[in-house]
Amino acid sequence: MTKEVLDYIETHRDSLLARLNDFLTIPSVSTDSSYKDDLQKAAQFVEDYLQEIGFDQTEQLPTNNHPIVYAEYNQAGPDAPTVLFYGHYDVQPVDPIEQWESEPFTPEVRNGRIYARGASDDKGQVFMHLAVFEAFMKTKGALPINVKVCIEGEEEIGSENLYDVLQEKKEKFAADFVVISDSGMVAQNQPTILYGLKGFTGIEITVDGPEQDLHSGLYGGAVRNPVMALSHILSTMKNIDEEITVEGFYDDVEPMTEEERALIAKVKGEDYTKTTGVTETVSEKGYDAKEHTMARPTFEINGMYGGYQGEGTKTIIPATATAKITCRLVPGQDPEHIQQLLVDHIERVTSTGVQVAVKKEKLSSKAYMVEPDHPLIQKAAACYERAFEKETVFVRMGGSIPVVEWLDAIYGVPIILLGFGTPEDRLHSPNESFPLDSFDQGMKTLVYYYDEVSK
Amino acid sequence: MTKEVLDYIETHRDSLLARLNDFLTIPSVSTDSSYKDDLQKAAQFVEDYLQEIGFDQTEQLPTNNHPIVYAEYNQAGPDAPTVLFYGHYDVQPVDPIEQWESEPFTPEVRNGRIYARGASDDKGQVFMHLAVFEAFMKTKGALPINVKVCIEGEEEIGSENLYDVLQEKKEKFAADFVVISDSGMVAQNQPTILYGLKGFTGIEITVDGPEQDLHSGLYGGAVRNPVMALSHILSTMKNIDEEITVEGFYDDVEPMTEEERALIAKVKGEDYTKTTGVTETVSEKGYDAKEHTMARPTFEINGMYGGYQGEGTKTIIPATATAKITCRLVPGQDPEHIQQLLVDHIERVTSTGVQVAVKKEKLSSKAYMVEPDHPLIQKAAACYERAFEKETVFVRMGGSIPVVEWLDAIYGVPIILLGFGTPEDRLHSPNESFPLDSFDQGMKTLVYYYDEVSK
Repeated sequence: MTKEVLDYIETHRDSLLARLNDFLTIPSVSTDSSYKDDLQKAAQFVEDYLQEIGFDQTEQLPTNNHPIVYAEYNQAGPDAPTVLFYGHYDVQPVDPIEQWESEPFTPEVRNGRIYARGASDDKGQVFMHLAVFEAFMKTKGALPINVKVCIEGEEEIGSENLYDVLQEKKEKFAADFVVISDSGMVAQNQPTILYGLKGFTGIEITVDGPEQDLHSGLYGGAVRNPVMALSHILSTMKNIDEEITVEGFYDDVEPMTEEERALIAKVKGEDYTKTTGVTETVSEKGYDAKEHTMARPTFEINGMYGGYQGEGTKTIIPATATAKITCRLVPGQDPEHIQQLLVDHIERVTSTGVQVAVKKEKLSSKAYMVEPDHPLIQKAAACYERAFEKETVFVRMGGSIPVVEWLDAIYGVPIILLGFGTPEDRLHSPNESFPLDSFDQGMKTLVYYYDEVSK
Repeated sequence: MTKEVLDYIETHRDSLLARLNDFLTIPSVSTDSSYKDDLQKAAQFVEDYLQEIGFDQTEQLPTNNHPIVYAEYNQAGPDAPTVLFYGHYDVQPVDPIEQWESEPFTPEVRNGRIYARGASDDKGQVFMHLAVFEAFMKTKGALPINVKVCIEGEEEIGSENLYDVLQEKKEKFAADFVVISDSGMVAQNQPTILYGLKGFTGIEITVDGPEQDLHSGLYGGAVRNPVMALSHILSTMKNIDEEITVEGFYDDVEPMTEEERALIAKVKGEDYTKTTGVTETVSEKGYDAKEHTMARPTFEINGMYGGYQGEGTKTIIPATATAKITCRLVPGQDPEHIQQLLVDHIERVTSTGVQVAVKKEKLSSKAYMVEPDHPLIQKAAACYERAFEKETVFVRMGGSIPVVEWLDAIYGVPIILLGFGTPEDRLHSPNESFPLDSFDQGMKTLVYYYDEVSK
């Protein structure tokens, strides 16, 4: 029944890869406003493709920043279920650019992987769904179920405008369930169902001292050094046992059950020292790295800077210092409450002689979990096994997809996370890539799945 | 006896200022190798001027980096004393450039001050000596004493090559005493004799974690964050009482005497909150800001950076973090020993999961002090008073001039520090400037002094 569809994908593999290539060539970096036109180009690429596939209706919903591509296919009829497929066409910045082995926006295939920014997160995985829709239309002249498509351009900047759009157009996006491919498998070719995601929040701390940089010889001993003051603040927020020492931070955390620890223990974890090059892994006291990354909250400094960074020495007391911080949250934790705890803590520990300002990350999200034994989840697990010919494992992951929490809050329908990425993909890092195995078996999985859920 | 000399300076003030302008227009930033040609231009400017004045011999001594301008005037004869005049033609970087009210290398006179990088440190003060030499030659046809001139181009990068040159050419630079104008007065038009300088040393700490930046959602909880690790290290090196908490750091410090505290108490200190804009001053527990800046050692983070600094948020665990640190030392402390104490401390407190590397600042210097009642010092004090018509105060300062320690070590002759800068000069900061009062009364002071020391 799905054979011709699978054959189509196999025979058209080269042209599909060429088209993915065009998508990956667009530098749609949403964190940097100077790329605005390229975001527009990427949105146009997606809409054109959906139109060509034969969706009944396609459009770009304008926002204050980057448009949301929306499309509808209703020919499966009123009795058929409707799926909402979500993804994003924007990508992370590429710096440090000098660490890329090939140009981030000139895709290159090396030893079974496509190297390019966005190859895995999320252009590559979005493209697989579009290609599968194309295959169904070309071979069956129809899609097995009704489909709504929502591809946004602001995922990497916290989906700034999506929530409002979803609220305004509640009916437009309504569906029986949601499918998202913006995550990974625990190992290449290891079918993985992701049944839990972490929440997300963040702050930016700025410590201001003197009005301008000062000569360290003339003023050292008279004024507080903002970089040292910021270091003192940060050092009180997480200790060397990797415990977050912000008062109240863990209060609402739902403790891990023994069942869950057993479930996690079953998963063959990533060899972090091999994939990251660290001398040894570190994790919260009382939890191993697998448990901490999957099921415990985190606090990370994403960037810090103050004073002179150039060649040689500059003997100054810097005027200001800044730190960008984000936290990953687990079920039970409220993002806004956590932000307030961070602010209160910082105000408590800031030393005299400097002024501290804390900017709260506007877009935050709660953690999300779905029951592993839900029929739509079980069908997904089965389709994975058919395509990859390997038993599916069930995991929670440390990543955050704000839209998942919002869709859950607004519609309360099941959200099925079909990830095909791998631990070696280097998301958000130089030399991001995506395995061709995932590309091929992943599309197979999707063909099976869209067919299965129509029954 | 000195009247015509003073008259010459007064009547030629405009042309002298115009020529200083040319000097300040050269962007001779020694910390950045891309300015190498401009350093050469500045050296040429100084040599051309010395030649034109009528020195018997002028030359540029090559080094591995920027040349040292040397000149000799011997016509005062074998019985007259010989002074070595030292200064530097290089300047600090200008960043943050956007904070300058006028172009750093387009000098501008506003409300009685010349605004330009190097106006006070040290081009402006070097120029005053050259102008005074010119005035003597044009009016008397001779200088009152024999003069050797040493103007280097690497003071702002720790005088990297000067020490070796002084060692090699010990005889060439030999003199009965040394005069340097690379410091300031405690207040504008307040004659100040600087009888003590701090020593200097520094290190650069680099903390390496993962091979590349990592996704904070997928790896948070598994690897150590290098920026947090560095914050932990730094926070153990100085506490919020501004006490340096590196084991052994204070062991060799010569304690302040009650006499000295009384001497410092007599000095009308700088109003730091007014000049720097800080909410309040901070200083080492048990010492006020004046005492700490003048006579206690300091530890300052000059710059720190790691991870994302761009617009918006980037959810990464940075691969690496760096901090640039310099210390100002007092009599008793050995720079190399202090560096080793810093390295030992860092190795003791570095947490697991990261690798730390410490680079030692090559050029360090001991602190320097001269007896306030030395005749050459007393003569200087008297000349200040004649020129500025105000009683001279005696102070120590937190700045470091490595060459002072070296000249002291090599020749053991008195080093007279005739500074004309003011606390409002913003050395090493945006909008550096130098008062025209200091320019005028300073040259007067130098005319008196070069005449006095010939008697």
